[in-house]
Amino acid sequence: MTEKYVIGVDYGTLSGRAVVVRVSDGEAIGSGVYDYPHAVMDTTLASSGAALGPDWALQDANDYVEVLKHAVPAALLEAGISSADVIGIATDFTACTMVPVMADGTPMSNISEYKNNPHAYVKLWKHHAAQPHADRINELARARGEDWLARYGGQISSEWELAKGLQLLEEAPEIYNSMYKFVEAADWIIWQLCGNYVRNACTAGYKGNLQDGKYPSKEFFAALNPGFENFETKIAHQLGQLGDAAGTLTDQAANWTGLPVGIAVAVGNVDAHVTAPAAKATEPGQMVAIMGTSTCHVMNGNVLREVPGMCGVVDGGIISGYFGYEAGQSGVGDIFGWYVNNQVPASYFEAAANAGKSIHEYLTDLSAQQQVGEHGLIALDWHSGNRSVLVDHELSGLVIGSTLTTKPQDIYRALLESTAFGARKIVETFNASGIPVTEFIVAGGLLKNQFLMQLYSDVLKLPISVIDSDQGPALGSAIHAAVAAGAYESVGAAAEAMGRVLKGVYQPDYERGKQYDRLYAEYEILHDYFGRGENNVMKRLKAFRREVSSHD
Amino acid sequence: MTEKYVIGVDYGTLSGRAVVVRVSDGEAIGSGVYDYPHAVMDTTLASSGAALGPDWALQDANDYVEVLKHAVPAALLEAGISSADVIGIATDFTACTMVPVMADGTPMSNISEYKNNPHAYVKLWKHHAAQPHADRINELARARGEDWLARYGGQISSEWELAKGLQLLEEAPEIYNSMYKFVEAADWIIWQLCGNYVRNACTAGYKGNLQDGKYPSKEFFAALNPGFENFETKIAHQLGQLGDAAGTLTDQAANWTGLPVGIAVAVGNVDAHVTAPAAKATEPGQMVAIMGTSTCHVMNGNVLREVPGMCGVVDGGIISGYFGYEAGQSGVGDIFGWYVNNQVPASYFEAAANAGKSIHEYLTDLSAQQQVGEHGLIALDWHSGNRSVLVDHELSGLVIGSTLTTKPQDIYRALLESTAFGARKIVETFNASGIPVTEFIVAGGLLKNQFLMQLYSDVLKLPISVIDSDQGPALGSAIHAAVAAGAYESVGAAAEAMGRVLKGVYQPDYERGKQYDRLYAEYEILHDYFGRGENNVMKRLKAFRREVSSHD
Repeated sequence: MTEKYVIGVDYGTLSGRAVVVRVSDGEAIGSGVYDYPHAVMDTTLASSGAALGPDWALQDANDYVEVLKHAVPAALLEAGISSADVIGIATDFTACTMVPVMADGTPMSNISEYKNNPHAYVKLWKHHAAQPHADRINELARARGEDWLARYGGQISSEWELAKGLQLLEEAPEIYNSMYKFVEAADWIIWQLCGNYVRNACTAGYKGNLQDGKYPSKEFFAALNPGFENFETKIAHQLGQLGDAAGTLTDQAANWTGLPVGIAVAVGNVDAHVTAPAAKATEPGQMVAIMGTSTCHVMNGNVLREVPGMCGVVDGGIISGYFGYEAGQSGVGDIFGWYVNNQVPASYFEAAANAGKSIHEYLTDLSAQQQVGEHGLIALDWHSGNRSVLVDHELSGLVIGSTLTTKPQDIYRALLESTAFGARKIVETFNASGIPVTEFIVAGGLLKNQFLMQLYSDVLKLPISVIDSDQGPALGSAIHAAVAAGAYESVGAAAEAMGRVLKGVYQPDYERGKQYDRLYAEYEILHDYFGRGENNVMKRLKAFRREVSSHD
Repeated sequence: MTEKYVIGVDYGTLSGRAVVVRVSDGEAIGSGVYDYPHAVMDTTLASSGAALGPDWALQDANDYVEVLKHAVPAALLEAGISSADVIGIATDFTACTMVPVMADGTPMSNISEYKNNPHAYVKLWKHHAAQPHADRINELARARGEDWLARYGGQISSEWELAKGLQLLEEAPEIYNSMYKFVEAADWIIWQLCGNYVRNACTAGYKGNLQDGKYPSKEFFAALNPGFENFETKIAHQLGQLGDAAGTLTDQAANWTGLPVGIAVAVGNVDAHVTAPAAKATEPGQMVAIMGTSTCHVMNGNVLREVPGMCGVVDGGIISGYFGYEAGQSGVGDIFGWYVNNQVPASYFEAAANAGKSIHEYLTDLSAQQQVGEHGLIALDWHSGNRSVLVDHELSGLVIGSTLTTKPQDIYRALLESTAFGARKIVETFNASGIPVTEFIVAGGLLKNQFLMQLYSDVLKLPISVIDSDQGPALGSAIHAAVAAGAYESVGAAAEAMGRVLKGVYQPDYERGKQYDRLYAEYEILHDYFGRGENNVMKRLKAFRREVSSHD
């Protein structure tokens, strides 16, 4: 019997990557990448050149189809296989990324009368211009005691469907009223592949507020704005479970991709969540941390619990049959990046270049020579605010303990440590909420920093496993494609065969762990003092800043 | 009648500077500088090459005489006057800088049997190896309820005579017991000029614990160490008031300097204190801030009050007839220096060079473009600990409010502001203690930063006057020389004629001041939280650091 293959396509913020994966063992044998022609529109709208407001971030949905036309054939070419041996395709997407569409799925931005209206375009996950709308949604939900709020750690994000939808209604009612549906890009791309609109359970729950089969009530939507009363009709649709088939590949999509007509097309999915099976993390207690500029934590649970400060819990949100929990650290790698770009002198860059190292490698190696506690510093990792467990983006960063002998590597290490302490706070909160974390599995670019991985192991006092693939999301999509095609009976079984993980690569050093406990105790005191209302200086400083900046 | 002249010699940490000053109006008409051949010995002893311990800082007293031989003739030459028209000489010195001497004033380091013993040398003001001794002195003083302790803000320094003397006794008893006296370098140099040892009232009070005519008791000294019971005999001596003559120039000193035999030699003095009359600040309420790497604040008062956290109050300590108050900020310019050396990227240095500015000028100009509060930051200026008003060198620096958009100039400005807030805390503490500050007069290198001066004015809500001389201490010494020579009847009268100040150069902007009040309110909350025991994290971090560093 010949080998069979599946295609996983990972839709990121700036490009899409297609990977050809062997069904029998998950080996990736070819890949192709395609940059979105319009990238992210965050200053001007391409069609008109008109300026966009602050915090806007748009995309053109047509770019996603271009990925299918270019990246999939490129991956097939590199794999050197016959396309006849491909049995399924699946995708993962950024979320919450929303496309307003006509009844046939046409993006509103393709309608000539709307093409110069920014609201007709895709609102990318990081479109943050709906913050005032999110604030109103959260205030009203608290005032009405909406029971779904606790499923989201007590607060929903400006990135999510309700906030983006409310902004659309209030700023472009003609588009809101003419559109058939407001669709997750994760589902829109599947619609393009199979001709069916199936709403995936993951984003419906995490981003669309679907809980226990219900959206927020008509009364709630109407209280936000009478015109918003019908919002459920704009987002509700037939649900699909992760790993199920949404349909089969259409003639048109077969033409775009070079794949056979009629192969399985899986239900849409999200980049972070699809990484769990790619790292074989399909059982309760296995927390996957996708560590990059920020960190996303996903974990399955047997039971439904309300974990303070989580991003959300969704039935079937990661693996059908489990409760999927998600948490996050708003800033991790981007704090390290900010530091080296803004606070490291030339002599360090020169020494790094002379040593043939990146600046991050060089600073890491210098800081790794220290004993725990030797730098005399504590930092709070809140430069981008705090997602879990405080859910407060008005918080900010802090470094304490500087002296005239403090060196750049000292502060760099304190920042590395602060993110490990932030992760420990999340793990301990899950443990205390009856969802114990038993294994910590890392995916994402930061797993390459071995010192950082050992630091996390020592601080968390957990073994650290790492994904054994640099195309984790695409591999996770491929696993879903294999299940949708019937090659495996479940995502768990497919992950067992196709997932890639190196188990227990880092083991905690308990002596160092005890020393880190002393620093973590200080972190916790500062975390609660600045984060839980005893001293709201960070919020006051941000308010002051906004006040004087708007006077310019 | 021909013009008369006086010589002021300012003994700094690395060099001595002599200035020829016209008696009638204080005009400086010539100067000369001489670097100490042995500079500061803080790693090895020059005579033997032997390593010194951490925190040691020694000098060779012979270097001070070399200054007389080189810098005074150079100043005379530049002035182009006849030395016959010079009527007096005075000096100011770093303090507490201590010389162990034989009965004729010979430094113990000139005795061949001691020349390789580090304890035979001058212990420079910044010799900090007597910290354990200072700790014991403070503990014992508190335990015994010694009433002199309040005159020093509740704590004496490791830099002062008692701590340095106790270290000398315990580590080199043979030198302690053989020495005739343990002499302030400020007085030793006068001894070399006039052949008389006269102990100046300023250092006797501020550094030697002389209060109300008494040193600490024999019982107190004996309780520290039985061999220390006689410490008063090592430091007590005939006192001289500031501005009095200690004697007249000897033949030998006339040969060294080229000055006439028999001219007046003033009682010794200290660099910071002598700057007050140089800036015409001789009346109660006129606070002089000598702002450099650190800031020293000196001010006269009519009454004796115990100001929390002051460095000391001494009868006649600045101007004979007033109570002289001293306070200090441990780190000011050296915090800015640390920041640019360790936390500013290459692009800023390049842009500064292209603009023809120093990096400090460039960062200051960038930060000056901001509104108050625009950077969203608060810093604590404790990188070198906090002298006044917390008297705690276990405190450390802090920056709060960083985000991923924080720029180097933002933190630089927050550090500038933090030192202004530290100064305000001192001023407000004096005000609250019944010693009101009515004018703030700046001397020292930082007065060149006009933005910083305006910032201080706005934060303090006081006019800022600045000394109009870049040789402030030497001018102050010259004023004392003129009084000692009888040209003026008092230091106050001489200062009126010879002192140089630009009055009210900076006037507070009360609108900006109101905005700074909001930041200062945050500073105060953090100051008390971290500085007054609510969260001793800074002390714990330093203790942790020492513990693990000693395990290396």
